[in-house]
Amino acid sequence: MNQKRINAVLEEMSSRGIDHLIISEPSSINYLINYENNPGERMYVLLLSLDGNHTLFLNKLFYLDQELSLNIVWYDDTQDGAVLVSQYLQEASCVGVDKNWEAKFLMKVMEHANDECCFEIGSICVDHVRMIKDEEERQLMREASHINDLAIDQVIQLCAQGNMSEIEATQEVTNILQNLGCTSFSFPAIVAYGANGADSHHEGDDSMLHAGDSIVIDMGGLYKGYCSDMTRTVFYKEVSEKQKEVYELVRKANEAAEAMIKPGVKLCDIDKTARDVITEAGYGAQFNHRLGHFIGRDVHEYGDVSASFDMEVEEGMIFSIEPGIYIQGEFGVRIEDLVLVTHDGCEVLNHYTKDLLVIG
Amino acid sequence: MNQKRINAVLEEMSSRGIDHLIISEPSSINYLINYENNPGERMYVLLLSLDGNHTLFLNKLFYLDQELSLNIVWYDDTQDGAVLVSQYLQEASCVGVDKNWEAKFLMKVMEHANDECCFEIGSICVDHVRMIKDEEERQLMREASHINDLAIDQVIQLCAQGNMSEIEATQEVTNILQNLGCTSFSFPAIVAYGANGADSHHEGDDSMLHAGDSIVIDMGGLYKGYCSDMTRTVFYKEVSEKQKEVYELVRKANEAAEAMIKPGVKLCDIDKTARDVITEAGYGAQFNHRLGHFIGRDVHEYGDVSASFDMEVEEGMIFSIEPGIYIQGEFGVRIEDLVLVTHDGCEVLNHYTKDLLVIG
Repeated sequence: MNQKRINAVLEEMSSRGIDHLIISEPSSINYLINYENNPGERMYVLLLSLDGNHTLFLNKLFYLDQELSLNIVWYDDTQDGAVLVSQYLQEASCVGVDKNWEAKFLMKVMEHANDECCFEIGSICVDHVRMIKDEEERQLMREASHINDLAIDQVIQLCAQGNMSEIEATQEVTNILQNLGCTSFSFPAIVAYGANGADSHHEGDDSMLHAGDSIVIDMGGLYKGYCSDMTRTVFYKEVSEKQKEVYELVRKANEAAEAMIKPGVKLCDIDKTARDVITEAGYGAQFNHRLGHFIGRDVHEYGDVSASFDMEVEEGMIFSIEPGIYIQGEFGVRIEDLVLVTHDGCEVLNHYTKDLLVIG
Repeated sequence: MNQKRINAVLEEMSSRGIDHLIISEPSSINYLINYENNPGERMYVLLLSLDGNHTLFLNKLFYLDQELSLNIVWYDDTQDGAVLVSQYLQEASCVGVDKNWEAKFLMKVMEHANDECCFEIGSICVDHVRMIKDEEERQLMREASHINDLAIDQVIQLCAQGNMSEIEATQEVTNILQNLGCTSFSFPAIVAYGANGADSHHEGDDSMLHAGDSIVIDMGGLYKGYCSDMTRTVFYKEVSEKQKEVYELVRKANEAAEAMIKPGVKLCDIDKTARDVITEAGYGAQFNHRLGHFIGRDVHEYGDVSASFDMEVEEGMIFSIEPGIYIQGEFGVRIEDLVLVTHDGCEVLNHYTKDLLVIG
């Protein structure tokens, strides 16, 4: 149990008029009670109550390897877990619900609730707390990103040999991260050659490298429960004037955004700064995604660096800055760092060079 | 587009009074319109309507590599996709919702719906159709299981050498399945030694084999879009009388269940037959999960072989039969096959021996 974090969530609930909060995200439950569980398709809920009586709903197939100072409700596959949750909501007047909770559980709970009870998305109460990393988390995020810096250097050296398919390269990313102490990866790594790099979410295939290809490498590992995430783009054997221009533009957008980050700045304005750099150079339509996302225990946590997210930056936030330009049929460039907001600016957690590299 | 499958879903909708159906499961959308997409956290919806006007909601980040004969609504990260869906529901009176649709989308749609509109879980309309595999699917499931038979033989031969940790063994499973033509795995393979096998969902660790250990191997690969799934339990170097007794009991439960499968039999009664074998021998409490699950494009599809699922078996269904006995602190045994229901019985899709094997 991490009572300090739970208290912070209860405060958020109170300020929003939510008296009961259904938390189903395993990483949020782990964050609050230090218990890791992979529930698969089965219902898994931590129910927080303003009255201090918190309850964890567990399928009998799950393993509980420790004592937890809250109520435990065990159920088995012949029982409807959601009906059990609803029995704990008979006194509730406003229930907050996890944003990703499955409809099959939510609709059952709503059906069995008392008529006056209202439901709303309430995971913001946890997400807000998770947005601000405490000192222990900041240090783990620094270590995770340091490993990613070391790993991408090895990946780029292997790519320089020019004899790996994309899919082989992504497998190498996994091996390298594991050898450096990661227990898993943050997401399936992207290694995209040439025109494949114009798809920002390209899945590796059997493509091989050709001279003049861009190589987009987007990778991250899970280290002591925290995620790294970085992208670099390098060029194989040669680089054209157009590629150079696009590369320097993306770098400029990345660095302009990072330079303005400090408490009080709006996240949407950071997106705008980077986007303006790219748009003014005529590539606005080729930058077709948000500038960044929050990250921590999950690779995508609540919070965007995008036009639609006007929250102000606070000390302790960690998010990505990842502008990109994607020239269909030709190449792609993306440069991504993680940044930690400090009291008067930001600490860039990735230190691998952003100078244009021609390898091989 | 697979109009035959879509028509079958529309019939299910009609018979349940559902006029609009929100389908969000990527494998269900792929099943109906032959378009594969990995939406990640972004909204992805196929909206079927009884009036024949079907609509696909796509984020602009997704790739559409073909013409589809339905309406396409594109949205970007600055727009609320769920609000767009709700605009297509203004004439709806009963909306079916995918069982796994995230609360953040569902609650937004409900909020913007007209007051008379009712919502219910509607994915059963697709799930029912997917339960009955057509001839093409049956053949693919046979091929996928044949590969799994070949693969487990290789895994068991490697285990016999006795020098791999569990985690190394699970990596070998992945390699072997890929070498045999699988594009991915159905689920992270389980290779559990000795007492670890008493956890039915054990995650591989650095445990090594010791003489007298049971080895539970639960594995499956994705082949041409279809999943295999099989478990065998073997013993390393020696086997105790208790292990033998438990093994033969689990095998008897597995075979008793498979022997009774034919159209018209209730799924809960199949569970009961296997469970009774185990309970009567005094191990009922050590068989703590359902007997089986449906499978196809997803490793866990709608449908259980469990006490709470009283649907009757129909020709074309494919599900697992996987009784297990878990002796805490000592060992575990599980034996799992996939079966395809025929007109008068069932075809067991796995052919790897169920004789007790002592390896090493």
